[in-house]
Amino acid sequence: MGSCPVLVFVLLFSATLPFSGDGGKILVFPIDGSHWLNMKILVEALHSQGHQITVIRSSTSWYIPESSSYFTSITIPQTQSQNIESQSYMTSFLKRSLDIRRRRGSLWALLEFYSNVFDLLRENQKTVAELARSIFENKKLIKELNETGYDLCLTDPVFPAGVLLGHYLKLPMVFNVRWIYSGDPHVALAPSPLSYVPELFSDHSDRMDFLQRVNNIIYRGFLVYMYYFVTNPPYQAVCNDYFGPDVSPWSIIQGADIWLMRVDFTFEFPRPTMPNVVYIGGFQGKPAKPLQSDLEEFVQSSGEHGVIIMTLGTLLGDLGPEISEIIASAFAKLPQKVVWRHIGEKPATLGNNTRLVKWLPQNDLLGHPKTKLFITHGGTNGLYEAIYHGVPILGMPLIFDQFDNMVHMTSRGAGEMVEVTQMDVESLTSAMKNILDPENSYKQNMLKLSGLLHDKPIKPLDSAVFWIEYVMRHKGAAHLRTESYKLPWYAYHSLDVMAVLVACSLLITMFTLVSCRCLIGCLVKSKKSTLKPKKE
Amino acid sequence: MGSCPVLVFVLLFSATLPFSGDGGKILVFPIDGSHWLNMKILVEALHSQGHQITVIRSSTSWYIPESSSYFTSITIPQTQSQNIESQSYMTSFLKRSLDIRRRRGSLWALLEFYSNVFDLLRENQKTVAELARSIFENKKLIKELNETGYDLCLTDPVFPAGVLLGHYLKLPMVFNVRWIYSGDPHVALAPSPLSYVPELFSDHSDRMDFLQRVNNIIYRGFLVYMYYFVTNPPYQAVCNDYFGPDVSPWSIIQGADIWLMRVDFTFEFPRPTMPNVVYIGGFQGKPAKPLQSDLEEFVQSSGEHGVIIMTLGTLLGDLGPEISEIIASAFAKLPQKVVWRHIGEKPATLGNNTRLVKWLPQNDLLGHPKTKLFITHGGTNGLYEAIYHGVPILGMPLIFDQFDNMVHMTSRGAGEMVEVTQMDVESLTSAMKNILDPENSYKQNMLKLSGLLHDKPIKPLDSAVFWIEYVMRHKGAAHLRTESYKLPWYAYHSLDVMAVLVACSLLITMFTLVSCRCLIGCLVKSKKSTLKPKKE
Repeated sequence: MGSCPVLVFVLLFSATLPFSGDGGKILVFPIDGSHWLNMKILVEALHSQGHQITVIRSSTSWYIPESSSYFTSITIPQTQSQNIESQSYMTSFLKRSLDIRRRRGSLWALLEFYSNVFDLLRENQKTVAELARSIFENKKLIKELNETGYDLCLTDPVFPAGVLLGHYLKLPMVFNVRWIYSGDPHVALAPSPLSYVPELFSDHSDRMDFLQRVNNIIYRGFLVYMYYFVTNPPYQAVCNDYFGPDVSPWSIIQGADIWLMRVDFTFEFPRPTMPNVVYIGGFQGKPAKPLQSDLEEFVQSSGEHGVIIMTLGTLLGDLGPEISEIIASAFAKLPQKVVWRHIGEKPATLGNNTRLVKWLPQNDLLGHPKTKLFITHGGTNGLYEAIYHGVPILGMPLIFDQFDNMVHMTSRGAGEMVEVTQMDVESLTSAMKNILDPENSYKQNMLKLSGLLHDKPIKPLDSAVFWIEYVMRHKGAAHLRTESYKLPWYAYHSLDVMAVLVACSLLITMFTLVSCRCLIGCLVKSKKSTLKPKKE
Repeated sequence: MGSCPVLVFVLLFSATLPFSGDGGKILVFPIDGSHWLNMKILVEALHSQGHQITVIRSSTSWYIPESSSYFTSITIPQTQSQNIESQSYMTSFLKRSLDIRRRRGSLWALLEFYSNVFDLLRENQKTVAELARSIFENKKLIKELNETGYDLCLTDPVFPAGVLLGHYLKLPMVFNVRWIYSGDPHVALAPSPLSYVPELFSDHSDRMDFLQRVNNIIYRGFLVYMYYFVTNPPYQAVCNDYFGPDVSPWSIIQGADIWLMRVDFTFEFPRPTMPNVVYIGGFQGKPAKPLQSDLEEFVQSSGEHGVIIMTLGTLLGDLGPEISEIIASAFAKLPQKVVWRHIGEKPATLGNNTRLVKWLPQNDLLGHPKTKLFITHGGTNGLYEAIYHGVPILGMPLIFDQFDNMVHMTSRGAGEMVEVTQMDVESLTSAMKNILDPENSYKQNMLKLSGLLHDKPIKPLDSAVFWIEYVMRHKGAAHLRTESYKLPWYAYHSLDVMAVLVACSLLITMFTLVSCRCLIGCLVKSKKSTLKPKKE
């Protein structure tokens, strides 16, 4: 079914278009935390293709190791770590967010939520912009980087220090991206009609009623404000000092050659895109490995009822005693076995069917045939793994994009969502039973999504590697990038043209009206003067 | 370089995701003329994958055969053939177009040009809409089509009879498309900012100055007029009768599952696109076969100077004696040998270096190492073949999109363009010498484009077959299609939301002003009344 010509072509192709004999030199500037987990997969894949990789990391880095068999690293001294990379800061941020969430619905809570997010972002952007500045100031390092002769800068633009460095070194740029610091990265590239493209944090699907569309526009307003007054200023200051006031971080971001978006349309709502956007969503997907024997034994003991997996991601092991008791009680009411990643106190109401663990092999458990349900905070990595393995989802979204993510899953009928701050034992039990009920179509819908995710002409990770090598082969991909980012905003939106066209129309109308008036005036006058003599 | 994982995946993939054991049943509704040449390539590729193909053709069809080893056909009786498929009509249309072109620059000539195009289109759309109606009226045929149980309708929507039929039979739909009857097919799907997306027939590139941007908006106006008053009415009439007044041909077109666009960004300017658009530009590309011995001998006799190939496409073998003499004289001045497809009288000034032929093996000649220059009318098939083989171009655009096409090539430095109605022997000779001069970079630029066209993770034709089979496997591709086409136009553009937001702002402002006025009034009054007693 079409694979034979593909095979032949791939064989021909790999013989005719190698990048170079020795591989390329790639400068990688990643973001810490779960973003690094994604970048690491790319780094390993590039390493396996024979490329030399240098990773830039901060001395306060939490996840990125100083030494690895896949890459060499350059460590930038930094005294202040980014809040977003500190577990204690994130726990307190989360606590504040949940507290605000409890009072949701009120305008005050919404403003407080944004003020909370803005505080977090403002602090981080300053730290990251200073990191970029400290690199530019380090003449020895810059000289070394220039002399190495990198072929490409691969970076995650969510905090754009890597973007600024790539521009400074005049390197072709490829982004490994899910967000940028102004919101959805598509907005930097492709028109995003707010009538069917839900805004980041809006919790809307692509089918919005009138009020949701009003709301969506207001959310865009928030994000525009956030960009201009919260996230952009520290980077613009660095740009002013090193590239001149005409260069904005936004225009550098828009000038990237290829955007590897960690997005797939089994998960994301379809929307306008650009030729230089390559979708690699689900690139982390891989088959499950066998479980350790004790865990396998526990899973097998579930019999026909199967197993529920629960984890709230790397940042959070515990939602506090009150919520933990609700969850434990709800689990105890079910015939399934449960594997629950839980770091805090052991709940008093914990049932015999529930095993608490400090860490769980998420992908291997999701790929286990006994697994019936995945309870998650709604981070994208976990959701893509669940789609990959076809496991329906119960979401307990907590912060950031997790609510949006769960809206994506529920709108496809592949899961449900509970509001952590409002749930009780009954509602949680009933939500889980609902998804587990084979009469309902959650499992079928998830299997359908899984089939779509697997059905691609080229595996997402191979696609990512191909396009990175493509940019190196051709020293960029300018022919895939529109000219739009060089236009001033009023020209981009054709406002200057519209103004001139409207002005011309008005002038013509006025001229016609005045002419008509004169003409009529003259006619009336001449009629009068023609009539007068007759009377005389 | 990334090919190994691709290979492994393709092998795994082809084993796990076949479409079905016996192939699918595909209903193909092509367009005649050069459009059929493109569709035929797809039909042959689908046939080779084991699919059963039924082609719908009109009894007056010019190119599409009744019998073939690749497909079975259904012939629809038609008395009146489409003008656009009649050689004599097209020759006279071309003559009128060139005549108008001679007087170009004047508003009158522009209006006459559009009137000429509108006449052609109006006639054709009526004929095609009647063809669709005659199929719907043929109850026996419709019953047969329904009973066959097709998996998919593959059609070229440039004239949308196939689109209406696919909708009538409720089949998943895949388009093989370069234009639709309202202009650029992207406009039906993706936002197209007129500041950097040149309009069809505008002859602009993606870098427009202010006046060109004004011009671009006016062209869009022309096309919108053309759609509503020229091309759409006959189809809307058919829709009204068979699907009800709420269904427009436009909405059916927008509802297609996958758009296989015969577009590649080595040729096209980058622009917003959609997830369900698959670019297959250059899918017709194939290596050259050896030439017949006498032609090979002639080509070899050119020595180091090489060969020039000239053809103006299937529709036109002759530009009339006057222009033919200019071309013959210019060729006679060159050291190269020339192979010229020329149907009319032999020009008196023909040199010994020029061989006239009634037909030429275009792809084999373009792929010949001696070929130095391709002189073409600028049809897309020929241009993609030239890019495939890396041969620079001299364009003599005549009608339709040929001027736009040549703007694409010249803006990339891969060719030049002469105005047929204004050229003389000197200007033509100098244009050819200019491109042939190795000091200039036409050849290098064309080779660069050629490298980009070949450098793809999957061959365009395989990609086309993959996505057609994908739609059959999943019975559509709704998850790649936005919800936008279900929105009314004012909601799509958020005009209703903006109106309400503006009205609310005005109300709040007015309320505030009135309140302030009352308040001030009251304050002043009370102040006066406080002051008065004091006076008393």
